[in-house]
Amino acid sequence: MNTDELSINSVRFLAVDTVQKANSGHPGTPMGAAPMAYVLWDRFLKHNPADPAWPDRDRFILSPGHASALLYSLLYHTGYDLPMDELKRFRQWDSKTPGHPERGLTPGVEMTTGPLGQGFAHGVGMALAERWLADHYNRPDHEIVDHHTYGIVSDGDLQEGVSSEAASLAGTLRLGKLIYLYDDNDISIEGNTDIAFAENVAQRFHAYGWHVVGPIDGMDPESVDSAIKMAKAESGRPSLIICRTIIGFGSPNKAGTASAHGEPLGEEEVLLTKQKLGWPHVEPFTVPQEALDHLREARVRGKKQQDGWQARLDAYGKAFPDEAAMLEEAWSGELPQGWDEGLDDLFRPGDKPIATRDASGAVMNALVDRVHAFTGGSADLAPSTKTLLKDHGHYGFEEFCGHNIHFGVREHAMGAIANGMSLHGGTIPYTATFLIFSDYMRPPMRLAALMGLRVVYIFTHDSIGLGEDGPTHQPIEQLLGMRGVPNLVVLRPADATENVEAWKVAMERTNGPTVMVLSRQALPVLDRDELAPASGVQKGGYVLWEHSPNPEVILMGTGSELHIAFEAGKTLSESGVSARVVSLPSWELFDAQPREYRDSVLPPDVRARISIEAATPVGWERYVGLDGVVVGIPHFGASAPASVLYEKFGLTAQHLVDEARRLVAAKSGV
Amino acid sequence: MNTDELSINSVRFLAVDTVQKANSGHPGTPMGAAPMAYVLWDRFLKHNPADPAWPDRDRFILSPGHASALLYSLLYHTGYDLPMDELKRFRQWDSKTPGHPERGLTPGVEMTTGPLGQGFAHGVGMALAERWLADHYNRPDHEIVDHHTYGIVSDGDLQEGVSSEAASLAGTLRLGKLIYLYDDNDISIEGNTDIAFAENVAQRFHAYGWHVVGPIDGMDPESVDSAIKMAKAESGRPSLIICRTIIGFGSPNKAGTASAHGEPLGEEEVLLTKQKLGWPHVEPFTVPQEALDHLREARVRGKKQQDGWQARLDAYGKAFPDEAAMLEEAWSGELPQGWDEGLDDLFRPGDKPIATRDASGAVMNALVDRVHAFTGGSADLAPSTKTLLKDHGHYGFEEFCGHNIHFGVREHAMGAIANGMSLHGGTIPYTATFLIFSDYMRPPMRLAALMGLRVVYIFTHDSIGLGEDGPTHQPIEQLLGMRGVPNLVVLRPADATENVEAWKVAMERTNGPTVMVLSRQALPVLDRDELAPASGVQKGGYVLWEHSPNPEVILMGTGSELHIAFEAGKTLSESGVSARVVSLPSWELFDAQPREYRDSVLPPDVRARISIEAATPVGWERYVGLDGVVVGIPHFGASAPASVLYEKFGLTAQHLVDEARRLVAAKSGV
Repeated sequence: MNTDELSINSVRFLAVDTVQKANSGHPGTPMGAAPMAYVLWDRFLKHNPADPAWPDRDRFILSPGHASALLYSLLYHTGYDLPMDELKRFRQWDSKTPGHPERGLTPGVEMTTGPLGQGFAHGVGMALAERWLADHYNRPDHEIVDHHTYGIVSDGDLQEGVSSEAASLAGTLRLGKLIYLYDDNDISIEGNTDIAFAENVAQRFHAYGWHVVGPIDGMDPESVDSAIKMAKAESGRPSLIICRTIIGFGSPNKAGTASAHGEPLGEEEVLLTKQKLGWPHVEPFTVPQEALDHLREARVRGKKQQDGWQARLDAYGKAFPDEAAMLEEAWSGELPQGWDEGLDDLFRPGDKPIATRDASGAVMNALVDRVHAFTGGSADLAPSTKTLLKDHGHYGFEEFCGHNIHFGVREHAMGAIANGMSLHGGTIPYTATFLIFSDYMRPPMRLAALMGLRVVYIFTHDSIGLGEDGPTHQPIEQLLGMRGVPNLVVLRPADATENVEAWKVAMERTNGPTVMVLSRQALPVLDRDELAPASGVQKGGYVLWEHSPNPEVILMGTGSELHIAFEAGKTLSESGVSARVVSLPSWELFDAQPREYRDSVLPPDVRARISIEAATPVGWERYVGLDGVVVGIPHFGASAPASVLYEKFGLTAQHLVDEARRLVAAKSGV
Repeated sequence: MNTDELSINSVRFLAVDTVQKANSGHPGTPMGAAPMAYVLWDRFLKHNPADPAWPDRDRFILSPGHASALLYSLLYHTGYDLPMDELKRFRQWDSKTPGHPERGLTPGVEMTTGPLGQGFAHGVGMALAERWLADHYNRPDHEIVDHHTYGIVSDGDLQEGVSSEAASLAGTLRLGKLIYLYDDNDISIEGNTDIAFAENVAQRFHAYGWHVVGPIDGMDPESVDSAIKMAKAESGRPSLIICRTIIGFGSPNKAGTASAHGEPLGEEEVLLTKQKLGWPHVEPFTVPQEALDHLREARVRGKKQQDGWQARLDAYGKAFPDEAAMLEEAWSGELPQGWDEGLDDLFRPGDKPIATRDASGAVMNALVDRVHAFTGGSADLAPSTKTLLKDHGHYGFEEFCGHNIHFGVREHAMGAIANGMSLHGGTIPYTATFLIFSDYMRPPMRLAALMGLRVVYIFTHDSIGLGEDGPTHQPIEQLLGMRGVPNLVVLRPADATENVEAWKVAMERTNGPTVMVLSRQALPVLDRDELAPASGVQKGGYVLWEHSPNPEVILMGTGSELHIAFEAGKTLSESGVSARVVSLPSWELFDAQPREYRDSVLPPDVRARISIEAATPVGWERYVGLDGVVVGIPHFGASAPASVLYEKFGLTAQHLVDEARRLVAAKSGV
């Protein structure tokens, strides 16, 4: 067994033993993909196991996250801070080796994978960020941003639509430094891929504008080596290397079958496999020193590479001090000094009514002038979402230095690509589409929340307020669905002034994604000289206005409906019912406040509470309780002018006034 | 102007006038796509405007639903029950001409479209259903199921991932009677499609195994005619006809630009366009009698076609009375007599614990023996979701008579295809995947709810109870997200006996989709000799058990957590706190009960309430109120054995007992 064979088997069997010890997991892919992974990591991947955060490292994504044991085995072999004991605690509580790779938990894991297709699409975002930063910061003879994004992708990844979307965009943008090894093993859980996946993958990727290499023998190191060289040589197109492999390779009874996929081989079969592949180390978790020595050269190589890069960066810093400082700041994720200057003056009392989508566009355009890392785009709706960063150019394959990304009608990939850009670092990405289409991008939004990524998802046309387009375009349940996602902050500002504050929250939030929910229709600018300051948005909810400090009834709402609540509150108070109006733009921020503050906004003994939101009523009982009234839309919308819909669906100040009077009367026993 | 030209312009300008009158809508696509639509509807489409429900009609889908004015114009011209007055009330309250086509509202509208990609993917389901019914029911010389599925699809549709998924499956299954005309107009909202969509569509569809015709001149009727003939002649592959068109054709100032897409031309531009195309009818809504006479021949042709088919059906009924009766029943959507026989005996007290996914599989296999129309499949997870219909074969291109569909790893298309099958009629479709992947299929689930389709979405691995796969696979917010969708019934049965009842609900629900949420882990079979009958599931919630009729505390839960609540309830009652345990498998069904019933289950004056569900706590305040305790998981899960997670996250009977004691003590002021 030569060093390559020895190392491949060492990587392979450490993964097999890891799964077997846990008695849970997926051995098949690690066994078949070990050769390609080994060649990539040993001969090509530019990384420094001692510094997994080195900005100019190559990125590696294991898109079929269920094959996590392969990644842990690679990390161990190449000398990341992942002790063998952690591999022995695979899939156990509080280990660094969870069932699917989790970013932040395990050094060297670039992203959390598991839901198929996401790794593929996030990788496109990483490659996009690299390209963008390189275009902006590199100078002749100063290639300080210069790395590849590699990934292993599976049959399942390529069947998911999100991969198709991302691949098409990657082809359009000619992302030449994106290289995926496709583990083409013909097997999926229900059997041979023929039953559901008869397409010609090579031809499909050709059609997307990719450089396709192979099919090659993915089990042969030299074939993989040549293929990756060809891929690296192609700088104008992303590359897909089709690697024919055998799932569960080496297992006498399971190789090439679906049963190798999702369950441990069994102790006996592990032994038979080791025997078949001539692996003498029957004792689990045995790693030959020769393999370890060989693979841990990655540390020496990595240090040398990083040192060389640091020297180049220093030279760059001398030649281009301003750019270097900006790049440093972008990498750090910190906002430049004075980033929010002037935002508070954008909107003043007396301004004419303005849709929050328009107000948001104004804020964004103010931001990008100061925060260069701020970049993003829309799924073919920029004129409607008002998210264009004016005079800031767009992404393209020829002139590449703009800030605006044309994602095409691809909401799902848009979410994943923005996440990938955030993962890469150096950018603060945003996306934009209509709120209804948030349904198309829930999987990446969830992953961003799970990974704690800084991304801003902008959703406009946020209710029946969009009017004539009708129920297919009118969100009802989308807000609620997003409010249930842990670590996702949802903001629905009520006017331009809350909009400014919402953007401050979003920009300063570094440990998770933020959702911005905006109106299509114009809304009055609340008069902050008369009302509470908009900075209350930072706390998620605040008392906007009240008739007296001891309210009989509390009216609460978000976004466009806050104005209805406000009107009702004034009417009630004028007629002798003391009302308080609470703006609740973000449940998550409000819930995170100390109980004392929350109780000051919503006094526990005031049970006459009414909420209003042009969305499903489900969930508002959280603040309204069993004794109040939730005014919402418990059905789908309809096609008609917005004003008609608000009237027909009872989202009116008069309705709130009636309900409030009823509640107060019931309480006083009238 | 010959009759074709006259008719095309008549269709075109009625659409233009419709949009202009509403002063809202999308004129560009109707103007460019009028020729292809005209040729298809006038020369090929087999339909009877007098009977839009005729089962053997060809199906037509307008996937870019924003071009609805084109469809309404076609329906008017060919003589459907859609008066001109309705076109004049385009996009107004209570009209039959909403902004996007809505099934059920407008005769002749086969499906609700608007969210891009959905029409494309639903059409694949229609073609699949046709193929399945034809395979099952046709006999030599008795082709009683024999129609095509046609569609117009747009650039945006082809960019959406769901189309890619559906196209790949349609190619694999060789759906030769599926024919799409691709309106290739190079324009999307943000500009020329080059900026985001540079792929080679023809090559991509070749790769999927499609028959690609063109690009042709989509504005030339004879080119469209030849292309459709070629597509019809190809019976072994689905066809994509690439029609080059000009968006906003005829408009001197807007043709070929994005500004023709989403807003009315303006009155002046309408006049200029009519002038340019030599259309003398400046008065809006003028339809020349010649065009009307010509296009309304569809009624004569349609009647003749339907009569011919009826005669063939009668002959079939004589030759194959049993099959004819079955087919009739399938079309009617009614369940056969005795469809639920024996279901109640599937599970008995004393049975060993069984996962609800396994129990569900048993029910499904009992069902399919009696309900032939019951068919579906999984997104490559059948062995895990336990949804295989044993000994019932699978869909394939050679042997096509099975019941099991291999959807591949394509959750999004799976949802859309199942919807399309339901729309087609003759089938009761189901889908299956893990609950976490419901995130991938939210858009079609919403459409099914909006259209009122009978589909069953099965989701297993419904909580942290799946254990080691970790947070990427553990649902937290998915249940809440689905509970917010109007007209979607979500059921999370607690054991095998509730499972049976849940399936009864799902099978009998004809006006909307049902979600079945099932455990991976085994759960005890509740002893119905001792407890309330499982039929309480039909009401969404019921008192499972109580210590006395005057409970001090109510414990409520769903699914696997109901057993924890039950254990806590018994413990409490033994220690002197009278507890009631409520099973709440479906919020929607429970909320639909009369107040009297709901109050009998959850007496308004009992405020010591605790809910438990292994999911986000958000939303449970609906039943718990401000004074109770919601036990849930307000964060993401983790990778570890299920039992460890339940303990670590506090989902234990002891926790409930402690909270209950605290609530009761607080109330009594102790």
